[in-house]
Amino acid sequence: MNETPDTAISSIEWCDTHVRILDQTFLPARTVYSDIRDVGRMWEAIKSLRVRGAPAIGIAAAYGFYLGIRELPETKFPSFMVEVNRIGDYLISARPTAINLPWAIERLKNTINAHKTDSIQEIKDRVLRVAQTIHEEDKRMCRQIGLHAQELIPAKANILTHCNTGGLATGQYGTALSAIYHAHKAEKNIHVWVNETRPLLQGARLTAWELNKMEIPFHLITDSMGPALMRQGKVDLVIVGTDRVTANGDMANKIGSYMLAVACKHHGIPFYVAAPSSSIDPTIDTGADIPIEERDGKEITTIGQTDIAPAKIPVYNPAFDVTPAELITAYITEKGILRPPYSF
Amino acid sequence: MNETPDTAISSIEWCDTHVRILDQTFLPARTVYSDIRDVGRMWEAIKSLRVRGAPAIGIAAAYGFYLGIRELPETKFPSFMVEVNRIGDYLISARPTAINLPWAIERLKNTINAHKTDSIQEIKDRVLRVAQTIHEEDKRMCRQIGLHAQELIPAKANILTHCNTGGLATGQYGTALSAIYHAHKAEKNIHVWVNETRPLLQGARLTAWELNKMEIPFHLITDSMGPALMRQGKVDLVIVGTDRVTANGDMANKIGSYMLAVACKHHGIPFYVAAPSSSIDPTIDTGADIPIEERDGKEITTIGQTDIAPAKIPVYNPAFDVTPAELITAYITEKGILRPPYSF
Repeated sequence: MNETPDTAISSIEWCDTHVRILDQTFLPARTVYSDIRDVGRMWEAIKSLRVRGAPAIGIAAAYGFYLGIRELPETKFPSFMVEVNRIGDYLISARPTAINLPWAIERLKNTINAHKTDSIQEIKDRVLRVAQTIHEEDKRMCRQIGLHAQELIPAKANILTHCNTGGLATGQYGTALSAIYHAHKAEKNIHVWVNETRPLLQGARLTAWELNKMEIPFHLITDSMGPALMRQGKVDLVIVGTDRVTANGDMANKIGSYMLAVACKHHGIPFYVAAPSSSIDPTIDTGADIPIEERDGKEITTIGQTDIAPAKIPVYNPAFDVTPAELITAYITEKGILRPPYSF
Repeated sequence: MNETPDTAISSIEWCDTHVRILDQTFLPARTVYSDIRDVGRMWEAIKSLRVRGAPAIGIAAAYGFYLGIRELPETKFPSFMVEVNRIGDYLISARPTAINLPWAIERLKNTINAHKTDSIQEIKDRVLRVAQTIHEEDKRMCRQIGLHAQELIPAKANILTHCNTGGLATGQYGTALSAIYHAHKAEKNIHVWVNETRPLLQGARLTAWELNKMEIPFHLITDSMGPALMRQGKVDLVIVGTDRVTANGDMANKIGSYMLAVACKHHGIPFYVAAPSSSIDPTIDTGADIPIEERDGKEITTIGQTDIAPAKIPVYNPAFDVTPAELITAYITEKGILRPPYSF
């Protein structure tokens, strides 16, 4: 296996004093990088999906948290911590479903509490180093997920995937897309069905863009075509990412993931979920308790400059759905493959 | 029950010498009527979905066939019939999947053959009358479908539907949407989940527009949301239309219908298909033999003026899928409800 990772996309970078992100709202038409220098801009970038994908949100939040506390005065620790908590809560409010965001903030706050006798400046420096560690760990986890996945991907396979789970959504390599990237790198004969992923078209805009760059064979389809392809024997496995896995093995992911899991069950096709440890939330028992973000109906009724529906109609726009553990053939984690019964 | 059908949409009209259609490619932004005066324009209107929906295609083709033969010279019957066949084949070539198109042409050709001793002018007049009869019969069938459906729709129901099966897609009332229209008219407490229906968004553009006009409560959703709503107990039944029903009870309908049927099966929710007799093709044994139209990938990659995917990527765009008989709870026809085993 060739070890050069050059074709894997990377969308977030720490540049000495600020964060540089590949702004995903402009893709695929334009490749625009944005420099983010304060926590408010990072909150906006997460909220409006300039940075998206559960692991990338965690990384961005970690850097954003550092940008926020960097500005705090050299006060006594308790008053410093009041501001730290405020900044953490503010960042967490940007998006509710992905666990990676509160996970990263919690980890950084634990670091701060573990070093409360250090100077405020030392604490700030340490938070930056941990944010960078979170970033590096994510890259390693994603690579390991891709390598472990190979035992599940045959030498020749039609793989269906949903949303974007690639380098754009993570530190590098991706989660579900890392499995696909590493299968291609191992010279397996794979072809990918890319769900466009309405409403925000992360599949059409981002996954198609990444696969194109990586020269991995694929076809773009609409979200409702997958089950018909399964019936025709044209899908060997489905791999998706996740925004939060609960203690019992349920998980939330981009709306439409559940539909795929149901269709896989009906057709006897494996449904795999690529999940780095940072996506696991053992504090929640089942998927029923995961907060599901509802977004503006305009995301459905307007595409670019085009209104595709009558004005002012009622729209329902949940961004995620929950897939129960019993429909998940296996989790692909950085530690290996996990099969049911799940217990996180 | 109030018998005034005023709020039911009608999209095709014979105006003494020509056909007037409501051009569905401009909806919902603009209400544009087009006068069609020759067979070539009707072929183009069917091909480019200005007229769409299996029953409406049949009606439009019948009028288009008359517009074509109206121009033929007063020759002997055999040479007249050569041209008649050519016009029929030409119209049938506009769209392959809906049986209503060849069904209408076949019926008109049978009429011609049954009156071959009449003058050519008499034959032409008779073809127009039969085309008008096909139109009137379709309205009656659609109304009967809507009335028969009431035994399947409870007094309070969340109904999910796909694509557009309303007055725009038929002579009047619609098929699946006639069931919904008549439930509302009977003052049942119904709410409709409208699948946007990618790629061409007939749900968002047309069904939402019709329901809005008829003041029937609904929410627009993306196509992959239905199964998640089913899991939450928010869908009581699914009703769709059909483009062709085969002898064994399989049927082809807009891509995404099969996905809904699989999800209904998984959740124990009834999956109903509204089918006028004109959609039944007993000459084909199973759904595997229905020709499935594949359309231009641009329908997926471009919406209005916006490119939503990278340029020149591979796209797969089948317009229909096949749902096997075993996933269909019942057919709703103008003659009543049919339950398995099916035999057409």
